[in-house]
Amino acid sequence: MKIVLIGAGNLATNLGKALYRAGHEIVQVYSRTEEGASALADVLKCTYTTDLEEVVRNADVFIVAVKDIALPTVASILRTGREGQLFIHTAGSMPMDILSFQRRGVFYPMQTFSKNKEVDFSVIPCFVEANDEKDLQCLKALALTVSDTVYELDSENRKYLHLAAVFCCNFANHCFSLGAELLKKHGDIPFSVMLPLIDETAAKLYSMSPREAQTGPAVRWDTNVMDKHLQLLAETPEWQKIYELFSKSIHDDQL
Amino acid sequence: MKIVLIGAGNLATNLGKALYRAGHEIVQVYSRTEEGASALADVLKCTYTTDLEEVVRNADVFIVAVKDIALPTVASILRTGREGQLFIHTAGSMPMDILSFQRRGVFYPMQTFSKNKEVDFSVIPCFVEANDEKDLQCLKALALTVSDTVYELDSENRKYLHLAAVFCCNFANHCFSLGAELLKKHGDIPFSVMLPLIDETAAKLYSMSPREAQTGPAVRWDTNVMDKHLQLLAETPEWQKIYELFSKSIHDDQL
Repeated sequence: MKIVLIGAGNLATNLGKALYRAGHEIVQVYSRTEEGASALADVLKCTYTTDLEEVVRNADVFIVAVKDIALPTVASILRTGREGQLFIHTAGSMPMDILSFQRRGVFYPMQTFSKNKEVDFSVIPCFVEANDEKDLQCLKALALTVSDTVYELDSENRKYLHLAAVFCCNFANHCFSLGAELLKKHGDIPFSVMLPLIDETAAKLYSMSPREAQTGPAVRWDTNVMDKHLQLLAETPEWQKIYELFSKSIHDDQL
Repeated sequence: MKIVLIGAGNLATNLGKALYRAGHEIVQVYSRTEEGASALADVLKCTYTTDLEEVVRNADVFIVAVKDIALPTVASILRTGREGQLFIHTAGSMPMDILSFQRRGVFYPMQTFSKNKEVDFSVIPCFVEANDEKDLQCLKALALTVSDTVYELDSENRKYLHLAAVFCCNFANHCFSLGAELLKKHGDIPFSVMLPLIDETAAKLYSMSPREAQTGPAVRWDTNVMDKHLQLLAETPEWQKIYELFSKSIHDDQL
């Protein structure tokens, strides 16, 4: 397929590379900055622009992978002169209809993308939606060229999927961050000692549910240990509050 | 070494197997229940008892791997007739001196153990402590027969290590559990779609700190998305509170 890529951030870069490797033709890349646009265009062997007005008029699909907040503005600038073209965005939390195009859709690859950390796109679950059955099948086929796991999902359910991803990724990662802070403050133990524990916590989920996998003082409701932990957190009342809320929520989850 | 194992729970079972495979002689296993004791003794090719008074009098080390709350009682029953023997416990949150023996120590393997889920003991970081230099070296040597990563750590710093492990394992796992609940309630998407995201969240920590790895609406302070997420959680005020606290804490962490 002939694809125009609007955006050159973490997600756009990873998706662009995966599409390019799958044999699609990236016609053009747009980014606000010359640096971002030229770097990605170089990898994807295509032309680039930093001016939305200069974006080409025809392609099989225009993928808009810009910051959520910029989506409506970018879409409205692009609309003129590109009526009848298929525009899709890649944002998990945004409804499809934020795109005011006649032919619109969503292609949400659910993953945490960081600069300088290449990911294997084939294992990333992708969620597609379109307001037209033919476009939906086209998006599904496109997604299957880069990922082994593709679901149709409407905007309403995708909102909850995205929220679940925030818990499973961002909030879990913040637990790691708080653990790292505690280690840094006490003793001379590097954070790397936590990696086997974190790996096993993730690995368990392949054979049991997170509820079944739960261990530790809160699930045993060991108030002796929990009270001591709360004392250790006395200097950081916010972490203390997190500890209390989580322990109670873990306990309730087992009832 | 000749080892007596007091306890037959998840940790005792995993540690016992690792020691047995490393070539140590497990002399005897104790458990409160006949079922637990005989099952583990069978695997470790040793005798067992369900009566603390019947525990043998001599061994190179007695490993007490019982519930934290039972530690002082079990220790006090065992003391009579076993003066001069080395007793150690395996609890991350308990000080060494909870054991009222002349020769005492700690061997804390930091991992989340579940029944029916075998773990590779060699990658588990083990933290040892003893009140005597010779016993400390002996424990360190013992630990190195089952694990590649062994640290000396005193009780004071081990308290914080254990607390950090609660955040990195139990609390992170609870984030997975809340994500699973959200998925179950909305749409027909299996929790397995979250596994690549969870794996990548863990894998990132091999090349960057959790703070550097953080992504999502809270780190961008995208109040538009966060407000919508809070609305989606309206029916579960406790999860809403967790969402608010975490988003604020993630944001503060980046400052």
